[in-house]
Amino acid sequence: MFVYADNAATTKLRKTALEAMLPWLEDSFGNASSMYAPARDAKRALEDARKTVAACLGARPDEIYFTSGGTESDNWALQCSVAEGQRLIISAIEHHAVLHTAEALAKAGRMVDILPVNAQGQVEPATLEKALSQGIAPALVSIMAANNEIGTVLDIPTLFTLTKRLSPTTRTHTDAVQAVGHIPLSLEEVDLLSLSAHKFGGPKGVGMLYIRKGVRLPPLLHGGGHERGKRSSTENIAGIVGLAAALLEAVNSRDSAAKQTDLMRNRLIDGILKIPYSFVNGDRENHLPGIASFIFECVEGETLVLGLDAVGICASSGSACSSGSLDPSHVLMAIGLPQEVAHGSLRLSIDETTTADQVDYLVEQVSRVVSQRRAMSPLWNEKTQTPTERFWPDGNPR
Amino acid sequence: MFVYADNAATTKLRKTALEAMLPWLEDSFGNASSMYAPARDAKRALEDARKTVAACLGARPDEIYFTSGGTESDNWALQCSVAEGQRLIISAIEHHAVLHTAEALAKAGRMVDILPVNAQGQVEPATLEKALSQGIAPALVSIMAANNEIGTVLDIPTLFTLTKRLSPTTRTHTDAVQAVGHIPLSLEEVDLLSLSAHKFGGPKGVGMLYIRKGVRLPPLLHGGGHERGKRSSTENIAGIVGLAAALLEAVNSRDSAAKQTDLMRNRLIDGILKIPYSFVNGDRENHLPGIASFIFECVEGETLVLGLDAVGICASSGSACSSGSLDPSHVLMAIGLPQEVAHGSLRLSIDETTTADQVDYLVEQVSRVVSQRRAMSPLWNEKTQTPTERFWPDGNPR
Repeated sequence: MFVYADNAATTKLRKTALEAMLPWLEDSFGNASSMYAPARDAKRALEDARKTVAACLGARPDEIYFTSGGTESDNWALQCSVAEGQRLIISAIEHHAVLHTAEALAKAGRMVDILPVNAQGQVEPATLEKALSQGIAPALVSIMAANNEIGTVLDIPTLFTLTKRLSPTTRTHTDAVQAVGHIPLSLEEVDLLSLSAHKFGGPKGVGMLYIRKGVRLPPLLHGGGHERGKRSSTENIAGIVGLAAALLEAVNSRDSAAKQTDLMRNRLIDGILKIPYSFVNGDRENHLPGIASFIFECVEGETLVLGLDAVGICASSGSACSSGSLDPSHVLMAIGLPQEVAHGSLRLSIDETTTADQVDYLVEQVSRVVSQRRAMSPLWNEKTQTPTERFWPDGNPR
Repeated sequence: MFVYADNAATTKLRKTALEAMLPWLEDSFGNASSMYAPARDAKRALEDARKTVAACLGARPDEIYFTSGGTESDNWALQCSVAEGQRLIISAIEHHAVLHTAEALAKAGRMVDILPVNAQGQVEPATLEKALSQGIAPALVSIMAANNEIGTVLDIPTLFTLTKRLSPTTRTHTDAVQAVGHIPLSLEEVDLLSLSAHKFGGPKGVGMLYIRKGVRLPPLLHGGGHERGKRSSTENIAGIVGLAAALLEAVNSRDSAAKQTDLMRNRLIDGILKIPYSFVNGDRENHLPGIASFIFECVEGETLVLGLDAVGICASSGSACSSGSLDPSHVLMAIGLPQEVAHGSLRLSIDETTTADQVDYLVEQVSRVVSQRRAMSPLWNEKTQTPTERFWPDGNPR
């Protein structure tokens, strides 16, 4: 059996998106900035896509700026919002596109505060309130809408309302790459929002930054003046049209897809937690429908992923981007897992097409590979079927 | 008849490129950074593409960094090479992706020198030599390989050899967006080189920056650490594979394509120059095979483009990016055209598929539209068929 359980890393391109893209890869190749018929067709497709995306997000078309992906959107929002001598606040569980950009800004002399999160991966309002009441008013607060490793959905409306109340001049940005198309989102009190097409069935290499009307964000990419002077580069019409088609379908089917995915996620978690010394990470109430993050004591996440690959299962030990890194995930450390345990994480991310049979196969194979790996581990007592050492005060800290 | 004569703005996607891309838009959608079979397929395709591009350029695979296009590559090269207090030299005829980035750097306090060019659009070595001998050693010299508006091919080997001889610590960058795939290029003394796929039959939304081994360029886009830590963002496999396939075909057929294109370009120029008070811009010896830039006295370039559009001809009055702008082209001003004349430019950019019939149609229609527009112009004496006022000292300054 083949089971793709890494939808948080990337998703299959939706048929509707591919069909929407093909004409723009075949005969309709005009440059949207030119002044003749084929170019006008491209321009029209571009503006239609912009309207679709705006409608899906509850925004205005002139607040939509297409980019090359979530990473560029995040870099743009952060790099161009926080000038010399200014202050940036982010959460400790941001995607590397935000976290590493913030680190680069800190190196270049900006003040960067990283807010801790609780064991569920939530930024507690009191934590943000404290940060806002100290030091200079931050130029930007950037907090993700949902986490890519543990699936926690953060309370952006509360956090950004608090931000605007305590510090009205502060700009707000949310990396919604993992959330868009999967859960409803509100743009209330959001000044900037990043999304990436390939996380909801669109193509790779295209994303968007929402910029609230009136927010002045200088360009990150200078040049020919595309995207109303804010993001230069010949428009990737096929990619943009694909993004819009995928988003429309994702949003239209979101509630039913989420319901079905969540059902399967529950079945998955129920099955996996029968494995002794296994735990589920994240927030049991506020979570993405498709992501489930587990810890198995005495097992390395990477060897688990390789063992699952051998039986046709695509999974991840954290975010795709950090694969190959020996450091434990900053997200799992931030939610309080000891380093020894954080290494043992497995992320399974399913979607509405995942069947009960596939879920049962996931459970069966994860159980088998975990047992197999534990049998070879010096940290595991095979006779008693218990760890030789515990790194958590009690069995399950949650 | 339909004639696409705006290949300098964008090109039709090559069939081989589309065919190479399709599998990565259909079933093979793995994230190249993940650790399972479909992801390894994607990773392999990515590295094969890198090898192909390296071979086409005469570079090493680990010198190839994929980006979202020429604009990002140019921004990366400039923004991340020239630190505070440092100096940048560019030419006056750079693409806006370089020119506007340089202007942004100047605003942020960097020293920026803009080298004048001669009437052919060439940076004269003496001009560069003078700039290098004055002031602090520049961090970067950025001069384009070939100009997008007038087609002039610049003498990069001479200019960059001079740079390295007079200022060994200075880094060199060439925006080769318009040149790659069309003319042979040498990487000698080139530290950084930008290209864009859609200028040689590849897809839009993907480009590359060549970074010579040993040159330390910090990232512009921070994040998950893709492209060996230098350019984060989930890899756009379909786009990258399309870029490589298009480049390979373009390079393999380059000499025959250039020969055929140049033949048609000569036919085009011979035909157009029969129109009275018409002139051709650029360098008659060192030029791209496909670009021909014309001036027609007493005619606005934009109205010409619209008139040609009405009879199925896709053309441009300058670069695609600046369409809609009322300012005359900075390139035409830099080669010494008076403002009144620079407005009357028409760029026709053909390729090896352009037929003699199409060229003859171009000549016929341009002649017709020019006559028609002149008949309505207060600057044109319809009776004597001469301009009422000349802005050039003699008829043709070249």
